[in-house]
Amino acid sequence: MKENTYSPGLEGVIAAETKISFLDTEQEEIVIRGYNLLELIRKASFADVVGLLLDEKLPDAARKAELEKAMVSSPVPSAVYEILQKLPASMHAMDRLRTAVSALAAFDPEANSVDPNSEHVRAPRIIGQVSQIVANLTHIAQGRKPEDFSPKYSYAENFLRVIVRRDVLPAEVRAFEQSLIAYSEHELPNSTFAARVVASTLADAYGALTSAVASLKGPLHGGANEAVMYMLLEAKDVPGLEKLMRDKLAKKERIMGFGHRVYMRRMDPRAALLKEVLHELIRARSKGQIYADMCQKGEDIMRTEKGLYPNLDYYAAPVYYLLDIPIELYTPIFFAARSSGLMAHIIEQHRENRLYRPRVLYRGHRGLRL
Amino acid sequence: MKENTYSPGLEGVIAAETKISFLDTEQEEIVIRGYNLLELIRKASFADVVGLLLDEKLPDAARKAELEKAMVSSPVPSAVYEILQKLPASMHAMDRLRTAVSALAAFDPEANSVDPNSEHVRAPRIIGQVSQIVANLTHIAQGRKPEDFSPKYSYAENFLRVIVRRDVLPAEVRAFEQSLIAYSEHELPNSTFAARVVASTLADAYGALTSAVASLKGPLHGGANEAVMYMLLEAKDVPGLEKLMRDKLAKKERIMGFGHRVYMRRMDPRAALLKEVLHELIRARSKGQIYADMCQKGEDIMRTEKGLYPNLDYYAAPVYYLLDIPIELYTPIFFAARSSGLMAHIIEQHRENRLYRPRVLYRGHRGLRL
Repeated sequence: MKENTYSPGLEGVIAAETKISFLDTEQEEIVIRGYNLLELIRKASFADVVGLLLDEKLPDAARKAELEKAMVSSPVPSAVYEILQKLPASMHAMDRLRTAVSALAAFDPEANSVDPNSEHVRAPRIIGQVSQIVANLTHIAQGRKPEDFSPKYSYAENFLRVIVRRDVLPAEVRAFEQSLIAYSEHELPNSTFAARVVASTLADAYGALTSAVASLKGPLHGGANEAVMYMLLEAKDVPGLEKLMRDKLAKKERIMGFGHRVYMRRMDPRAALLKEVLHELIRARSKGQIYADMCQKGEDIMRTEKGLYPNLDYYAAPVYYLLDIPIELYTPIFFAARSSGLMAHIIEQHRENRLYRPRVLYRGHRGLRL
Repeated sequence: MKENTYSPGLEGVIAAETKISFLDTEQEEIVIRGYNLLELIRKASFADVVGLLLDEKLPDAARKAELEKAMVSSPVPSAVYEILQKLPASMHAMDRLRTAVSALAAFDPEANSVDPNSEHVRAPRIIGQVSQIVANLTHIAQGRKPEDFSPKYSYAENFLRVIVRRDVLPAEVRAFEQSLIAYSEHELPNSTFAARVVASTLADAYGALTSAVASLKGPLHGGANEAVMYMLLEAKDVPGLEKLMRDKLAKKERIMGFGHRVYMRRMDPRAALLKEVLHELIRARSKGQIYADMCQKGEDIMRTEKGLYPNLDYYAAPVYYLLDIPIELYTPIFFAARSSGLMAHIIEQHRENRLYRPRVLYRGHRGLRL
């Protein structure tokens, strides 16, 4: 054992080989299967990215249509919704999602298979079903009937329509889709690592995905987008935000939405792009400038006071708010988008598996007798 | 990043500091909070071990009574059983357990708390509830009503009685309890590592436990005890086992129940002790000698042919079979017993937390353009 190299949290330790993605902190680029994530956010559809993640190359028109179809035409078994109806609305939305993703396995005849080819075929369906569960989480908790996705709309439009249950503008769909691409894949954050650790016992995709939901619930990982929005709502306006932030800084409280364990030298490039998306959405909806102004003020304060830059969650929050998405769904949506990257990692892990089984530094007693 | 030290599966890498347990492969000792696990299996009760794991010292009589009471007097909320009733009996028992453990969070008012003191108070109740879910899994799948544990019996007797629904001999209860202690804690196997990884986002105990169930389902981790029993039943007798094993060896098929990633030089000490337990159980029940004979033959063959020794699962399987426990419950029982060690690890992780966030070796493309 390499006792002298113990690194708490495995910081800086390489824990996997991958062809999926890489955070190049030197060149400040998020690489997804060779492409710059920013270019994908600007120019691709979510189905393009799903295809790229699963097939290791961008899909042609036929493959893209096939992926879209699997994602929008795979309804969630009614028993999964009935299970959600049994859970109290007071239960954390991520806990309800975790339970539903776990239950979903019951209705997949190949649920126990860890054959990468089977997982590759089933992945778009699983992504679509997970997204429908997310889109219906709040509706079910509030006693409304769940709705399936419809072949009439694209995956992104379906996802947004089922959440907000109103007609949506093309600019809204595109903003939402861009956020999904931004969240789709990000190398080896805790949730992806947890999914690969679990998958390495040759446990199946549902177990690995369930573990990723569990991980994302934690406030050090997911949840920041929701915390940002609660802060903006509490602040009410730009002077309010400045006061709130300076109070928090004085009390040394953590301010969510800034910084990242694997630092780029400057702003998370995804945040910079979502900031553009926010401005476009404000133009399209002719409202919401106040959130952009508050975010800019917060960004300025944190850069000056702490040298910290916003991360993706910071600008995803007001985008989702302007789309009328319930705040408790921000982290579940993050998970639904990330299920695409997670399926790619689960498949990669199962293709060339090695059981994760590290060791410990034992600091306890020895030699006690009963 | 230490690129040159990349170790697939994190083999030999230290991933946590702990005061809970240590596999000392040099001295061939499994250390649990300073005590030799074998001595605990021989002399302690399961409540002793729960106290030792949670309190960092063996419980006195009053504390032991308190722990027993929490474990046997905390019924499972009926909604959790109703959720299990919605899941098809064809769903893998570990998948049903994973869903139920996830759902259990809904009915704990402190479910979202990661305060180690709250977790310490709630741990015995959670262990008792998880055990009741496990004990009722097969009954519910087969349409029978779930039964709660009763303050009339010890935790171990309750657990066994609810599974088998008949009067049980003291020797049976003790054999079962010894298996639970043997399974209670084992340093940092994949499931414990998965639980700590998830807990490190400040996700709560239910999420961490759910991930451990997901991990244990994998055939490279849990599940071996069930595979061993199916092999013994297929073999029918000693010559049958010899033929079956030699066929598998000739075809280079994996034989479950032998070897372990973190090797002791000889036999897993827990296996040696469970072998004694099996012999005592055979004497008490005046039946089952054939399983001991088959196991001995298999042990001899594997030592001679492959230099491999049995692990705990190898001798737990016939013990559970002689106790009339349904085979699909062997791995869930492993989890119920391990929930004690897992709670200790989750509490330790939350007491001194550092987010797990390792890096990757990127082997994919760069510089592609849309």
